[in-house]
Amino acid sequence: MPRRPEQSDTVRLEAFSDGVFAIAITLLVLEIHVPSITASDHGRALPAALLHLWPSFLGYTISFVTIGIMWANHHSIFRYVRATDRTFTLINVGFLMCISFLPFPTALLAEYLPVPDGRRTAVAVYSATLVVVAIAFNALWRYAVWENRLLADDHDRAAVRVITTRYLLGPVSYGVSLALAFVNVWASLAVHGLLAAYYVVSEHHPLRRR
Amino acid sequence: MPRRPEQSDTVRLEAFSDGVFAIAITLLVLEIHVPSITASDHGRALPAALLHLWPSFLGYTISFVTIGIMWANHHSIFRYVRATDRTFTLINVGFLMCISFLPFPTALLAEYLPVPDGRRTAVAVYSATLVVVAIAFNALWRYAVWENRLLADDHDRAAVRVITTRYLLGPVSYGVSLALAFVNVWASLAVHGLLAAYYVVSEHHPLRRR
Amino acid sequence: MPRRPEQSDTVRLEAFSDGVFAIAITLLVLEIHVPSITASDHGRALPAALLHLWPSFLGYTISFVTIGIMWANHHSIFRYVRATDRTFTLINVGFLMCISFLPFPTALLAEYLPVPDGRRTAVAVYSATLVVVAIAFNALWRYAVWENRLLADDHDRAAVRVITTRYLLGPVSYGVSLALAFVNVWASLAVHGLLAAYYVVSEHHPLRRR
Amino acid sequence: MPRRPEQSDTVRLEAFSDGVFAIAITLLVLEIHVPSITASDHGRALPAALLHLWPSFLGYTISFVTIGIMWANHHSIFRYVRATDRTFTLINVGFLMCISFLPFPTALLAEYLPVPDGRRTAVAVYSATLVVVAIAFNALWRYAVWENRLLADDHDRAAVRVITTRYLLGPVSYGVSLALAFVNVWASLAVHGLLAAYYVVSEHHPLRRR
Repeated sequence: MPRRPEQSDTVRLEAFSDGVFAIAITLLVLEIHVPSITASDHGRALPAALLHLWPSFLGYTISFVTIGIMWANHHSIFRYVRATDRTFTLINVGFLMCISFLPFPTALLAEYLPVPDGRRTAVAVYSATLVVVAIAFNALWRYAVWENRLLADDHDRAAVRVITTRYLLGPVSYGVSLALAFVNVWASLAVHGLLAAYYVVSEHHPLRRR
Repeated sequence: MPRRPEQSDTVRLEAFSDGVFAIAITLLVLEIHVPSITASDHGRALPAALLHLWPSFLGYTISFVTIGIMWANHHSIFRYVRATDRTFTLINVGFLMCISFLPFPTALLAEYLPVPDGRRTAVAVYSATLVVVAIAFNALWRYAVWENRLLADDHDRAAVRVITTRYLLGPVSYGVSLALAFVNVWASLAVHGLLAAYYVVSEHHPLRRR
Repeated sequence: MPRRPEQSDTVRLEAFSDGVFAIAITLLVLEIHVPSITASDHGRALPAALLHLWPSFLGYTISFVTIGIMWANHHSIFRYVRATDRTFTLINVGFLMCISFLPFPTALLAEYLPVPDGRRTAVAVYSATLVVVAIAFNALWRYAVWENRLLADDHDRAAVRVITTRYLLGPVSYGVSLALAFVNVWASLAVHGLLAAYYVVSEHHPLRRR
Repeated sequence: MPRRPEQSDTVRLEAFSDGVFAIAITLLVLEIHVPSITASDHGRALPAALLHLWPSFLGYTISFVTIGIMWANHHSIFRYVRATDRTFTLINVGFLMCISFLPFPTALLAEYLPVPDGRRTAVAVYSATLVVVAIAFNALWRYAVWENRLLADDHDRAAVRVITTRYLLGPVSYGVSLALAFVNVWASLAVHGLLAAYYVVSEHHPLRRR
């Protein structure tokens, strides 16, 4: 009862990746800490303390949507990628290492965004992490499609070319966001929001069904 | 060896969602902290300190059952939903973002339920989170069933109509619970308990087997 | 393309349960805290401080093996259980709620086992949790086998009867361990070790292959 | 509708293992703590504080790559192993117990690597953990291949022999790393880095495709 090894490989690699995505995305909430308040004025203090957590909520939302989009994109490449090899597996481990790291810059952002002297560093580290994530994702895709290495024989060559170009948007945009961090941190954060919104509303995405 | 893309999509989306549900539900226990006691009177102090953790145990139980029911309901819609598209995937990410957030209001509830001036805010935040969860769940279902967008061709139209109506119970009930938080927090919490009990005992649920 | 609903149900329920088991078992390590030492005498202090963590290592090991065995047993019942219904799903959620709770009594044990006045309470809470886990597991199994409700048509009736009797060992043994906690905490812990060892070496387990 | 039990067993054991691997690897990030800085000099202090986290980043990277390689190897053995039995399941639980433990020595390493008097102990504990991991992995493989106990009938006998020899590299190398910890901790850490690099670049790995 030998399995078809290629399919088996992809299935387990996808399952493992999904696990890491799911855990990294869910751990984000652990970085939102219940505020401690002095006993004397809870009535007014708790709503105010919760509002002061806005950098945590903002970080949670941006990182959740970003990881969610990364998951959807990772998911999408397995419409084309039908086999794995050791190198692909290792690039994928490197990519997941970057994804799993995201709760740290998110916590850094939540902690230092309200601090004038710290926010530039926090936003720059956050953007730099996403530059690396996006480069790793491109490496994964390009390794797989190079000379059709891991693609199905009957894959749509035009779609693959379009996707290859489109995925460049990630490192470029996050690179812009990183550069902007040194000019204006809010502009840098806005790039993250715009990128997320672009992926969400993008009507002509080649991976979209029907 | 092209896969049937629709099935593949649903399988991986379900697996990813199951992962997030499983992690969010399991992280709840991390919010129950081992009590610290002064060394002088452990013998009597530890049982008493554990009893004082009742808000943590209550929050753990309500949130666990609530996430468990959400999981069962999410599970149920894939009896009818047989395909995904990008929008459905993104609504699902939004829904999971709300589910993953639940450990935070649960920890807030456990911390501030015993504090007279803080409990109203804590219960209101908890209920408000579940209102958003329920709205996101309804959005997911309604997007899928609108003009039979993602349903099997041979689906049971009557059952789909019944379910669509029934799912409205969620946002309405949690909305009532949110309003009650400003009148009486215990009444608000009772609504959560009753809703959980309703789902558990509900005999004529259309999704029930046989 | 309707799926066979029974199989689909079992697959997703098993996957979700596996997720919760895997997370609960892996979260145990978070309760082992890196010791803090005064800077003056690291050289000798760190090895000594690590040895003083023995209750954490003991708790980690007992709970890991216990959850591992529970997982193997949960796994085993799906050799016989081939369908799910709403009640079975809900009993399973209750069972998983108990499994997910285990990191808390494990942390309690690690913290209070070295404290003479606290250890009785810690061991009793630990054993009581496992009594509830074992009762929930029996409820799950008995619900499924009652009048062959969720079994395959061609199941081995003799094996099912043997298993039903054997599963009683869990609540009874953990009950003994709970009672012993009030007499001698080390005897109570020994029961946990012996139970784990019994499951590990048990040669004639009816679920064993070949 | 009886399932083929062997395949079912392997599938669920692999899924559970993947879950534990994915969680252990993702929990590593929780040990990297956002630095706290005095309010007076954030501007210069935060970049410096982040650089001082280098032992955390190093530990994260080494442990992530190590667990990733262990996952890839665990994954690989199921090209040959086609069935499970109770003993194999229990050895696997023991193996996973060691994998799940890794976040603790990683945190220990991050905390004590910069401390001259503590780093020897930290590196030794880290290496010793990996010796145990590697022994457990060899036990798992050898149990499965002994008299072809759990292999497919048509397995490649030569490849199995090569793999069996090759897997010995793990315990031996980590043993060398453990011994080196008592001579020079940096040499010991270098062995971990070299081992990871060896697995990554190893061209003639028998498990490699094509």
